[in-house]
Amino acid sequence: MTDALADRLRAELVDDSFTLSALDPSATPGVDGKKAAKEELDELREELFDLHEKLFAENDRALLLVLQGTDASGKNGTIKHVVRAVNPAGLNVASFDEPTEEELEHDFLWRIRKEVPPPGFLGVFNRSHYEDVLVPLAEENEHFDDVDRRIKEILSFEQELIDSGVTIVKCLLHISYDEQRSRFLRRLRRADKRWKFNEQDLETRRKWDEYRRAYGDVIARTSTEEAPWYVIPSDHKWYRNWAIARLLTAHLRTMGLEYPQPELDLERLRGSLEAPG
Amino acid sequence: MTDALADRLRAELVDDSFTLSALDPSATPGVDGKKAAKEELDELREELFDLHEKLFAENDRALLLVLQGTDASGKNGTIKHVVRAVNPAGLNVASFDEPTEEELEHDFLWRIRKEVPPPGFLGVFNRSHYEDVLVPLAEENEHFDDVDRRIKEILSFEQELIDSGVTIVKCLLHISYDEQRSRFLRRLRRADKRWKFNEQDLETRRKWDEYRRAYGDVIARTSTEEAPWYVIPSDHKWYRNWAIARLLTAHLRTMGLEYPQPELDLERLRGSLEAPG
Repeated sequence: MTDALADRLRAELVDDSFTLSALDPSATPGVDGKKAAKEELDELREELFDLHEKLFAENDRALLLVLQGTDASGKNGTIKHVVRAVNPAGLNVASFDEPTEEELEHDFLWRIRKEVPPPGFLGVFNRSHYEDVLVPLAEENEHFDDVDRRIKEILSFEQELIDSGVTIVKCLLHISYDEQRSRFLRRLRRADKRWKFNEQDLETRRKWDEYRRAYGDVIARTSTEEAPWYVIPSDHKWYRNWAIARLLTAHLRTMGLEYPQPELDLERLRGSLEAPG
Repeated sequence: MTDALADRLRAELVDDSFTLSALDPSATPGVDGKKAAKEELDELREELFDLHEKLFAENDRALLLVLQGTDASGKNGTIKHVVRAVNPAGLNVASFDEPTEEELEHDFLWRIRKEVPPPGFLGVFNRSHYEDVLVPLAEENEHFDDVDRRIKEILSFEQELIDSGVTIVKCLLHISYDEQRSRFLRRLRRADKRWKFNEQDLETRRKWDEYRRAYGDVIARTSTEEAPWYVIPSDHKWYRNWAIARLLTAHLRTMGLEYPQPELDLERLRGSLEAPG
């Protein structure tokens, strides 16, 4: 897909590698400040609603938004502020937390496959199959040796989706170490946010560099022509919302969606409706 | 639950029976006209968002909105204009169309059970298990003799949900024969609505009285103290949206939802976050 913003945010590889730390999480490419972004977001939300209605009416192809990012990077905020624009009747949000006992008994893609959006739907993965390679790489846990196999399976799984008409938009919400700190402190301070705080998140924060490297590695190996990764500078929430809304509408626009025009004998149908009951 | 609007819209039985035809689908009880309803809807949507966030944070109980009504009665419109107020991460909309081959091989509640909202969620049934008794009653089809058994099973299924912490709000969107005609004509006229038109809907329309009676019968037999039916006069879309938003917030309010306050050693956590990385 060709789009000015998509071209800027798409993860670009240099010599087969990709370094996340080289990107500024507080950058705001492509938009003229916060005020403009907020105004444009309102319009983008309306356009997103309209395009999604056509996707739903067509009932053939689907769109999958994969949201990845560290704790407090704004995955939930994106769902509230961008995804909420569409008709929930054609929306499926799947949040992948720690796998359950039952899920662990199956292959890692088992629970993921159940949430693939059906025709006409926007599917959102709040975390995803990528956790199953990021965590082993960063934590060097018992699945470290499965990473190569899993990456092959991810690539083949995504190709399968693409072949069946699913457009995949993979976004990494990229925040800085300092921004995460201030968001965590805010969660602790506010009585309506405290429930989101998880002591475990501090453990993960201690492995910041390991996770950055794992992301760089995984993005380099799974950003493909048809399902590229986009790295969204996310220290500014207004930028993150604007950028993801822009990417989603850009992808939907290129799908050439139109309302189906069923062949109906309009004269006869109108006549039968206008006849007294 | 006691609430002035809920008390007015709750299906009231007279001598064990209930007659839908006695209710005016263009009535607008409880609100002072369209302008007031629209203004209040904006506030109700915000309140709905907040209450649903608490439900989601609590992660214990759930709310199920059952939407029933004839074609073009506004089930989808309700989802777009009311349900869309909440965070999609805690929302599950299930649309029950004609059962598939696989679904027909199972008991009628099989596909329904799979969509029961998990703890913390708002679940919406766009059509529901009630189709499995309404259609046999109105069409006198091969399942006519299963209706009594199915109604018993529905009552026991709903009691099971209630016992597990699911609040059930059942709404019949009540429109007039004339209003359905004008909505069908509008669908035929507009290129962006025509895809919704289904020739089959005209067959159902011919059995208007049979369906009215079936609704009256089913409501009389399934409106219980804990899971009552609400009959929403729906000829005016603005009234329908306002009334359903009011009912949902009223039910959520009575649940006494609060953000969980985990026991955290705030001093220590703040300290460890403020230490240099």
